[in-house]
Amino acid sequence: MQTFDPHAVVERLGWRYATKKFDPGRKIPADRWAALEKAMILAPSSYGLQPWRFVVVNDATLRAKLRAVSWNQPQITDASHLVVFCRRAAMTPADVERYVQRIVDVRAVPAAALEQYKNMMLGTVKGLSAEQSGAWNGRQVYIALGFFLSAAAMLGIDACPMEGFDGAKYDEILGLPAEGYHAQVVATAGYRAPDDEFGKMAKVRFADADVVKHR
Amino acid sequence: MQTFDPHAVVERLGWRYATKKFDPGRKIPADRWAALEKAMILAPSSYGLQPWRFVVVNDATLRAKLRAVSWNQPQITDASHLVVFCRRAAMTPADVERYVQRIVDVRAVPAAALEQYKNMMLGTVKGLSAEQSGAWNGRQVYIALGFFLSAAAMLGIDACPMEGFDGAKYDEILGLPAEGYHAQVVATAGYRAPDDEFGKMAKVRFADADVVKHR
Repeated sequence: MQTFDPHAVVERLGWRYATKKFDPGRKIPADRWAALEKAMILAPSSYGLQPWRFVVVNDATLRAKLRAVSWNQPQITDASHLVVFCRRAAMTPADVERYVQRIVDVRAVPAAALEQYKNMMLGTVKGLSAEQSGAWNGRQVYIALGFFLSAAAMLGIDACPMEGFDGAKYDEILGLPAEGYHAQVVATAGYRAPDDEFGKMAKVRFADADVVKHR
Repeated sequence: MQTFDPHAVVERLGWRYATKKFDPGRKIPADRWAALEKAMILAPSSYGLQPWRFVVVNDATLRAKLRAVSWNQPQITDASHLVVFCRRAAMTPADVERYVQRIVDVRAVPAAALEQYKNMMLGTVKGLSAEQSGAWNGRQVYIALGFFLSAAAMLGIDACPMEGFDGAKYDEILGLPAEGYHAQVVATAGYRAPDDEFGKMAKVRFADADVVKHR
């Protein structure tokens, strides 16, 4: 299987920036969008529990409603695609059972062989308050966001992660709580507008030695 | 600039798994490790504030101490490299000022041009309790974790994200709080041992349609 050149990977990550102005006329081709969905799905999570859901909003009316509760930021409607990264409200023993059943199905292993692993997960899940569980899930969601943004950069697709929105309103507009989820963070993706001045600016990072420490 | 084929990117992400057993004799070459450090540094964060620090622990004695407070998981000492992803304990107005100064330096823009942006960030930072600020920073750290793991997969380097450790003990062993940081999550990286049975198992994910919803 092919691996990629380290310099080329770093070059692509350096090209990435949080796009402020998308070209509303350019759409991400279907095969490339499918790859970005796969990147989210393939992200790791604690125990592999996948405490998330990724809601891709294509409907123009819904996107206009979401923009209105996102400080009117234009990316919400102008980008080719919009994903709402949702956290599971709280992990329950039923979530653990469902996951274990999925392992049984995918790997064709007997449930008995997973008993110890299941009990470990149940112990963790039962030891968390609903609030702690939601916070844990919320953090995991950011791994999937990282996978999405990173994959977009590899493919030459622009994206913008966004936290500036009213989560409760997103929940309401998308009907998330009824299904046991809450909006956590958003990403828009597409292609930068030629006149987006931010894409031409130097990336700002603290000096490497201030960020990475060796012990 | 080169972009990557979507199928190849997905194939690499599918190759990735949370490595349980590393080959202790194989080291990541310096140029590849440098690329992984760059991947963390280039990760996005809210406002670009970079509320994190990445501590790469090479010292064998320190790694043995950390393993003892990580449920004795062998990856902590056997992997080629160990990174402790740390969150800034809380964002302060001084952090915002330091960041704005960095923008001024990197982009050679006058500080006055950033006044509005600075005040927006100060408003956010001052509106958060220390606990809220720490939680916000903690979530951002997982984006950098995602960038690290994703880049490792692109390069054909194995990795394992780990939350199973005593954060307070990590803080103490590495002296993090004195510098304003706390251990958030860990990643080990290197090369899977040929007899690591987990690398040969099918990846378990819920069905795509259960995870990605279109509206």
